[in-house]
Amino acid sequence: MLIPMQRIVLARRPDGAPSEADFRLEDTTLRELGEKEVAVENLYLSLDPYMRGRMDDAKSYAKPVPIGGTMEGGTVGRVIASTSPRFVEGDIVVGQFGWATHGVLPAREVRKAATDYAPPSASLGVLGMPGFTGWYGLKELGRPQKGETLVVAAATGPVGQMVGQLGKALGLYVVGVAGGADKCRFAVETLGFDMCVDHRDYDDAAALRVALAEACPDGIDVYYENVGGMVLEAVIGLMNPFGRMPVCGTIAYYNLGGLGAGDAPGPNMLPRMMRAILVNKLNVHGFIIMDHWDRYGDFLAEVGPMVKDGRIRYQEDVADGLAAAPANFLAMLKGGNFGKTIVRLAGDGA
Amino acid sequence: MLIPMQRIVLARRPDGAPSEADFRLEDTTLRELGEKEVAVENLYLSLDPYMRGRMDDAKSYAKPVPIGGTMEGGTVGRVIASTSPRFVEGDIVVGQFGWATHGVLPAREVRKAATDYAPPSASLGVLGMPGFTGWYGLKELGRPQKGETLVVAAATGPVGQMVGQLGKALGLYVVGVAGGADKCRFAVETLGFDMCVDHRDYDDAAALRVALAEACPDGIDVYYENVGGMVLEAVIGLMNPFGRMPVCGTIAYYNLGGLGAGDAPGPNMLPRMMRAILVNKLNVHGFIIMDHWDRYGDFLAEVGPMVKDGRIRYQEDVADGLAAAPANFLAMLKGGNFGKTIVRLAGDGA
Repeated sequence: MLIPMQRIVLARRPDGAPSEADFRLEDTTLRELGEKEVAVENLYLSLDPYMRGRMDDAKSYAKPVPIGGTMEGGTVGRVIASTSPRFVEGDIVVGQFGWATHGVLPAREVRKAATDYAPPSASLGVLGMPGFTGWYGLKELGRPQKGETLVVAAATGPVGQMVGQLGKALGLYVVGVAGGADKCRFAVETLGFDMCVDHRDYDDAAALRVALAEACPDGIDVYYENVGGMVLEAVIGLMNPFGRMPVCGTIAYYNLGGLGAGDAPGPNMLPRMMRAILVNKLNVHGFIIMDHWDRYGDFLAEVGPMVKDGRIRYQEDVADGLAAAPANFLAMLKGGNFGKTIVRLAGDGA
Repeated sequence: MLIPMQRIVLARRPDGAPSEADFRLEDTTLRELGEKEVAVENLYLSLDPYMRGRMDDAKSYAKPVPIGGTMEGGTVGRVIASTSPRFVEGDIVVGQFGWATHGVLPAREVRKAATDYAPPSASLGVLGMPGFTGWYGLKELGRPQKGETLVVAAATGPVGQMVGQLGKALGLYVVGVAGGADKCRFAVETLGFDMCVDHRDYDDAAALRVALAEACPDGIDVYYENVGGMVLEAVIGLMNPFGRMPVCGTIAYYNLGGLGAGDAPGPNMLPRMMRAILVNKLNVHGFIIMDHWDRYGDFLAEVGPMVKDGRIRYQEDVADGLAAAPANFLAMLKGGNFGKTIVRLAGDGA
């Protein structure tokens, strides 16, 4: 039986900043299941900054999406057919089923959603890849110590929310950076950050640095780097000796293309960075969470209960219908989202 | 009894690249010993890149030399008087006695020279601060694995010599970068590096990158960073996933002053660096060896015997007389030295 479905493909590679014309919505049918595979109807699609990288054919940690191929993306879905003993019809699962209403994947690439702790959509955010990224980077690479100062950019994004709240739970002084007064208020009042600096109030990295220096009177011990750009430039000179900088994203640079143009950084930033690394003995450590899925169980065991009982809160920014994905993805890249960006594709019964 | 001595003081702070006029040779007398102090006649003065940093009053990991103050520097000397039970007249010791023919320090800041393994001057180089820096950075932060590729710049400098030879002893494929055909030949023929690339053969980082890519067909796992500048820019794109980059120096940037001018790096280098750190999950880790003197005994126990029996070789670049220090220091900053730069101040009886 052929199941009709829709998907969004990469129509062309963006030249600099992507636009809606780089995407195309298509009608198609779901392919037949092979052995040990799972078919789902997707409930929610996750929109994440890493997808910008997949649109280019530059060397990265993962292969680019081919022209005409379905855009890569994590989804939470309801199993509608399975040839694997691990999943049965009706299971709520998570996998990279793509920007599509339906999908098929090998069962080994699919996991059960964390519905013991939160509704299905949370498995794309606070209990999914972004939350896990925040947890792993902060705890394993940030090595936070009680009383230290933690700065996290994109504070109300799904990674930043987790990092800041975990930081508070660990007894750190936590300062967020976000774009907009509403986001900053949310970071302090709802997420419990000590302070939040609105980078839109400052014209350049030098001005932002002054504001961050005031917000961090004891300097910065851990800077959780998930944006790059002006925030990084402002932070570099404020890091304390033996500071740690886990690096899980550089969204400010995603549109540089061949890196010959775009969001040009300030002058001599590489020497400044290298001098800071040397003089303050910093540890700058990049990571890609897909290398660490063996730790997901540890994450879920620790953070799942904190989400369930409200010690860790989360904010989702939900759009409706697959056709809305490109516009919401583009808005997210510019910081237009407020919380984890997801697209609702079908009712989850919740 | 007043002992006449000579010293070199900082006459003024350099404006960009330093010159001989920034230094002044003075006649003076050795101060009296206090309690638990040691007076020496210096045999050798070490000239090291870090001293460039001490000439500026910019924030760094150590205080600047004041105008009119004796230039800071490590020396090996013969004890001529001691009020500490730990040292007696005639002992050969190492300490930061400065650019001077004689000096006095608290006994706790002085250690015995490693003369069990090599002549006194070696305690300033291969068995002193630079050798220890190479050992600590490579072994503790570089975490080298047999069969991996190691690149080290300033390959025939005192740190690079140690890093490359230890790398070979650990079973790595070692590629040096040095300035000049004679240095490259020495790195391969005498120190046993697998290859050495002469950066003077290349006009820019892009051209050097092509040469390094050829020299490192399996990419780079460990880049021991002790120069910055063009070599760093060439290396960034060649690092393998999970590569390590210990950072112990950035000599290419020392003359940037306020970092507003000077050896301007290529465009968008900070974004390139951050992207490489993310995509290849690099660990960039700065360190200052003075934080790790508790490990010096481990270093000496491992490397001392290797120096004594010739498994680790070393090259010194020796000038004569205190007055020669400024010119030789300035030449070293430009790569004019060949091996560890030292100044002979008195006969060591060897």
